[in-house]
Amino acid sequence: MGEFELIRNFFAAAPCAQGGEGVALGIGDDCALLDVPFGEQLAISTDTLVAGVHFADPCDPFLLGQRSLAVAASDLAAMGATPLAFTLALTLPTVEADWLEAYARGLNLMAQACGLRLIGGDTTRGSLCLTLTVFGRVPAGQALTRSGARSGDLLCVGGELGNAAGALPLVLGQRTAEPMISEPLLTHYWSPQPQLALGQALRGKATSALDISDGLLADCGHIALASKAGLVIELDRVPVSLALEEFLGDSGAQQAALSGGDDYVLAFTLPALELPTLLADGWPIHVIGRVVEGQGVTLLDADGSDITPAVRGYQHFHA
Amino acid sequence: MGEFELIRNFFAAAPCAQGGEGVALGIGDDCALLDVPFGEQLAISTDTLVAGVHFADPCDPFLLGQRSLAVAASDLAAMGATPLAFTLALTLPTVEADWLEAYARGLNLMAQACGLRLIGGDTTRGSLCLTLTVFGRVPAGQALTRSGARSGDLLCVGGELGNAAGALPLVLGQRTAEPMISEPLLTHYWSPQPQLALGQALRGKATSALDISDGLLADCGHIALASKAGLVIELDRVPVSLALEEFLGDSGAQQAALSGGDDYVLAFTLPALELPTLLADGWPIHVIGRVVEGQGVTLLDADGSDITPAVRGYQHFHA
Repeated sequence: MGEFELIRNFFAAAPCAQGGEGVALGIGDDCALLDVPFGEQLAISTDTLVAGVHFADPCDPFLLGQRSLAVAASDLAAMGATPLAFTLALTLPTVEADWLEAYARGLNLMAQACGLRLIGGDTTRGSLCLTLTVFGRVPAGQALTRSGARSGDLLCVGGELGNAAGALPLVLGQRTAEPMISEPLLTHYWSPQPQLALGQALRGKATSALDISDGLLADCGHIALASKAGLVIELDRVPVSLALEEFLGDSGAQQAALSGGDDYVLAFTLPALELPTLLADGWPIHVIGRVVEGQGVTLLDADGSDITPAVRGYQHFHA
Repeated sequence: MGEFELIRNFFAAAPCAQGGEGVALGIGDDCALLDVPFGEQLAISTDTLVAGVHFADPCDPFLLGQRSLAVAASDLAAMGATPLAFTLALTLPTVEADWLEAYARGLNLMAQACGLRLIGGDTTRGSLCLTLTVFGRVPAGQALTRSGARSGDLLCVGGELGNAAGALPLVLGQRTAEPMISEPLLTHYWSPQPQLALGQALRGKATSALDISDGLLADCGHIALASKAGLVIELDRVPVSLALEEFLGDSGAQQAALSGGDDYVLAFTLPALELPTLLADGWPIHVIGRVVEGQGVTLLDADGSDITPAVRGYQHFHA
């Protein structure tokens, strides 16, 4: 039995690989088998993380295990899907038991938090690279796409933005900060919490949604383009954390919130009449703007002045 | 728009990315959406190919496009699944338009031959590496697994074995051969034909199945282990091609058929009473042995003598 076959057995024995709802057949055969309930559709998303490109190499394998699955699961949240399962394609330069054990532990923790089961994958030798494919189920016709935003809808996000971008100089060892600042930022970077419950709560209510991975402006540009509408963002309403403001200052924090990536917070559009019930139910919803006729993304300052052209790199994002 | 986003758009416009049966939402949103008919299950398999490990680097991108999808689709054949869709996670060191165009052309050709639609994926920068995840549907409870072989069943394969292993010295440029020999071998290596129709024909008939990727002996060991049964193979019955015999001689051809990998031909077990109808329907089925009480794989020569221990590397494959 080769060492890569041993790794397959190692993952097959992981807690997150044990069966569960919707998994008819897990690891060990030519295919896994999923049951999709009648009247539901299967949502599928694939994400690749390359060492040295998407994460520092070397990095803590436990944290990588958490992050690699969270990033993929966030796409299920963005569709309003209920998590079912995932596959892991793991390419490794060498087989190190400690590394694998720690990676699997982080993966397993996030899998349990998300309600995802490992049902298959592949293990190969090469430069460190991970491809995770996640599966969820969603009532037919109720998935949250990017294309339904309508003029008059509110533009909302599910939490504070910019923390992961703010964490980057800490992750790369370029800066240090006291724990009160560094810990919340690093936690957000390494263990983003996919907003799966919020995504499901938005089914039948939000008119469009996505998870912010490329930065707020870029991702709002995606909604605007897909929905053939304009989005107006009021800069003052964009939520940022105290830790981020302390670390980067007001202007730096705003920049991170607008253009930094890796937030994995939901952005969505919502008819105004849906808002009160969702807020009353305690969902963390911040209204940051509105949908208008037109196209692209417009950014307003506190006075209502259009500061779009002044935001560096904005042109790049303009639909 | 970055060059990797351009690639995503390039694949989104590929013929194989255009909608079709079962695909409710394709490339371009956070997730793709698949419809799974009532009473059916979704079959899923993931395969990674790493440059320099699973294929020579550089290699012909058109041929790689064909082969990368065929290898993955063969797992759907092994489960008796009807192909639906696939995702492509493509990691590239550099963006070269010619390479991408040729790769997409090969991919598209195999996708059309298999009835698979490209519904999503990821495109990243790094060492050349491809992870394909394929999706098929199969009536609930009718998937062909590895675990149902029963004593008394016939052991069968769906075609000649060893051609891909025989092609390897040609692929690597270590040997040459006249076209009558090299062409069929190289075709088998670069464009394996997943036995999707045969797999579907075996639903409700075969008691176990897989596709031969690790070599006949190793893969029969997988069936034996999963089914808690023994498999007896009669060496004389193992089909090999004339081209392979010409190229490697009788003994070399047998060795390639027994231990060479990458055949992507189905191996399966079948109650004897199912055989006549399948043969009458014209399916390419070769009976090569039988299932017995016990465990592991036993190899018999023409006289019925057990030559298992004499086959090099056999211990590696036992159970």
